[in-house]
Amino acid sequence: MLGRVRPSYEDKARLKEISGAILDRIEHLARVRGIGLKAMLVGSAARGTWLAGDHDLDIFLGVPETTPLQAALEIARLVAPEHDEKYAEHPYVHARVDGFEVDLVPCYLVEDASQLKSAVDRTPFHTKYISRRIAGLEDDVLLLKQFMKGIGVYGSELKVGGFSGYLVELLVLCYGSFPGVLRAASSWRPGQLIDLEGHAKKAHDEPLVVVDPVDSKRNVAAALTMDMMLQFAAASRAFLAEPSLDFFFPGPATPLSDEELLAQLKTRESSLILVEFQAPPVVEDVLFPQLHKAEESVRALLERNGFRLLRSDVGSYRDRAMLLFEMEVWQLSRASRCLGPPVWEAEHLSKFLAAHPRPLSGPYIAEGRSVVELPRKYTRAQDLLAEELGSLSLGKHLSWAVRSGHNIYVGPELLRIDDEGFRVFLARYFQARARMG
Amino acid sequence: MLGRVRPSYEDKARLKEISGAILDRIEHLARVRGIGLKAMLVGSAARGTWLAGDHDLDIFLGVPETTPLQAALEIARLVAPEHDEKYAEHPYVHARVDGFEVDLVPCYLVEDASQLKSAVDRTPFHTKYISRRIAGLEDDVLLLKQFMKGIGVYGSELKVGGFSGYLVELLVLCYGSFPGVLRAASSWRPGQLIDLEGHAKKAHDEPLVVVDPVDSKRNVAAALTMDMMLQFAAASRAFLAEPSLDFFFPGPATPLSDEELLAQLKTRESSLILVEFQAPPVVEDVLFPQLHKAEESVRALLERNGFRLLRSDVGSYRDRAMLLFEMEVWQLSRASRCLGPPVWEAEHLSKFLAAHPRPLSGPYIAEGRSVVELPRKYTRAQDLLAEELGSLSLGKHLSWAVRSGHNIYVGPELLRIDDEGFRVFLARYFQARARMG
Repeated sequence: MLGRVRPSYEDKARLKEISGAILDRIEHLARVRGIGLKAMLVGSAARGTWLAGDHDLDIFLGVPETTPLQAALEIARLVAPEHDEKYAEHPYVHARVDGFEVDLVPCYLVEDASQLKSAVDRTPFHTKYISRRIAGLEDDVLLLKQFMKGIGVYGSELKVGGFSGYLVELLVLCYGSFPGVLRAASSWRPGQLIDLEGHAKKAHDEPLVVVDPVDSKRNVAAALTMDMMLQFAAASRAFLAEPSLDFFFPGPATPLSDEELLAQLKTRESSLILVEFQAPPVVEDVLFPQLHKAEESVRALLERNGFRLLRSDVGSYRDRAMLLFEMEVWQLSRASRCLGPPVWEAEHLSKFLAAHPRPLSGPYIAEGRSVVELPRKYTRAQDLLAEELGSLSLGKHLSWAVRSGHNIYVGPELLRIDDEGFRVFLARYFQARARMG
Repeated sequence: MLGRVRPSYEDKARLKEISGAILDRIEHLARVRGIGLKAMLVGSAARGTWLAGDHDLDIFLGVPETTPLQAALEIARLVAPEHDEKYAEHPYVHARVDGFEVDLVPCYLVEDASQLKSAVDRTPFHTKYISRRIAGLEDDVLLLKQFMKGIGVYGSELKVGGFSGYLVELLVLCYGSFPGVLRAASSWRPGQLIDLEGHAKKAHDEPLVVVDPVDSKRNVAAALTMDMMLQFAAASRAFLAEPSLDFFFPGPATPLSDEELLAQLKTRESSLILVEFQAPPVVEDVLFPQLHKAEESVRALLERNGFRLLRSDVGSYRDRAMLLFEMEVWQLSRASRCLGPPVWEAEHLSKFLAAHPRPLSGPYIAEGRSVVELPRKYTRAQDLLAEELGSLSLGKHLSWAVRSGHNIYVGPELLRIDDEGFRVFLARYFQARARMG
């Protein structure tokens, strides 16, 4: 088991060799240009806690606060002539070097992690904190990372909303071992506080609060959603009750076949409505929060109009983004009740009656209030979506993408999308199974 | 207008003659048997406030509290050899005499209306109270009665839940005239108190409280529903704003034709479900409260199962009773969410998971709680009703009637009931129009 997650001796040697070469080259270039720059390997590669098969190198180019970051960025560009420029809080360089994905990130060398000028300035402090303490616990970190990967809660990117690598390391430090973390997590509930240095300075209202040892005001678990936290807690309990390799390596999700899709539609007798469009050219950390916001807007639109959702989800495949709505109620009567004022509010009542001169039925009185029955504009959820989606405010990138063109697929029309990524998404959607115990 | 509601001179003479003859005969029979009995004409006939065309005579046979009511009942039987025996709190006799519907009601002669032994003992006090004060206001009473008849709020029987004749008379006494009542009612709202004698002894929580002048603890309007009260208030406002004979004589309701029924179904695009059965052999004052209770039970059953009602109603035609449900949501997905305990309640959670070993989807976590998706038993409202109606507790008379056999008609199947009374009921249901302003 450990053999599958622990990098081999050769992997380690290779990583050391390549990262060493890059660090040397950066410092050489800096010296030549007379820039006081410190090159640092950070992240899991630096701490000996990377999973076998991962080939990510995070190399930071630290400059004093008096030096512009631009100087470091130019050196990064020279180190890897073939590269992409990316952007988080500041620009950085990404390149493939000898089979490794290398991020070259300019940052400031600050005195103390609480005085940072940018979020990335904190990273070297994390590496320092972990490196000094993690010796002997690396395997526990690897097991916990793989366990979280297996159950789908690993990764702090907004698409996942799960646990970051640094958070995993802190949990292992806190509870002493992989099983120690699982035992502790088994009884977590929202409001759990972990404060290794006992120096919490601020109240947080996230479900899990892990005070950053290098910055007492920060919650390392701020991006962890409650559902991901609880999914980990429930899986920990389930694993301790009945351990199995499956938790770590659940096997690949298989895409849904046409027959399986039709069988699901037949079993569920629901109405599945997919809204699908060209994904806007933004990173997933921008795209997914917007998709979730759009999901909420559409959910509210549907419910405001009397329809009822069973479940919904968002996703992407290839260059497409999508919102999936599964309806419990997708068909309503044309006649609908329109509630007016209490009958004794004479002035309101006459305005209400004047506004509805020829109702389908009424006006009548129900529980003291005037009521008329009017024809509803949309009796089918898909008609409502088709007409009103474009006028929802969906956030700037999505509004533009949806208005530029979108498709709506209902029920068996989903068969027309014959894409493996999409069919895996559907398979996961229908299964929707979290490990619990 | 008054000509249509005021009894003619000949009518009055005839009523006097017939009632006089009956009273004489009763007192003669009592004398012969040595019973101290006082025969009294009560109700609107006694007060000169009966509507033209009404031929109801209420004659009470009052005996001292020491005499058994049975003695009076036997005399009533002899007075009208061809009669029905009916039963309210006590038995009484009903007969047709020369075209009049005559009720012969035994009662006790009590000192004071607050000391009565039975509700009917109060009636002679009402007649005495009204007769002494109503002179000169009889036409106002007749107009108000006909107005209330026209807008459908006249009658204190439980099928209607409207205004009794006595209540109408008190309103006219209180506000001095027919238009005076309408002006006052225009601004009524729930909680309105009318206390002619200023002797209220008790707080009531009915929407309209009219303290009985002859019994300070009693609310004369106790049987008036809030909707009937407000319908009268709204119609009063509408009439004062734009008077019209239509309020008094709205014309007969025309039964819905097949074409009109089909047109309604097409316009409303709802699902109409009718439950219809042999009416149990009880009077309307027993039947209608039970029908309304059954309506509420079925409504709750439908909503508990995820369906949504637009409106419902109850009624009877010929010897049949019926419950009508118009559905806004009558079709649901087979898949449905079943909410489990919060994920951190480990013991509850494992029981929940054990109870649902093979869900359609899940278990998953939503907002901290465990969820499984299960197949719903009924996806169509009519299937739910067909299966579960018999196991609802519907009150003793209805439970028996429904279990002995009932029919369920859905949508166009309603065409199969080609009964005029039923079609008038449907016409009223679809129009559902109260006069308002």
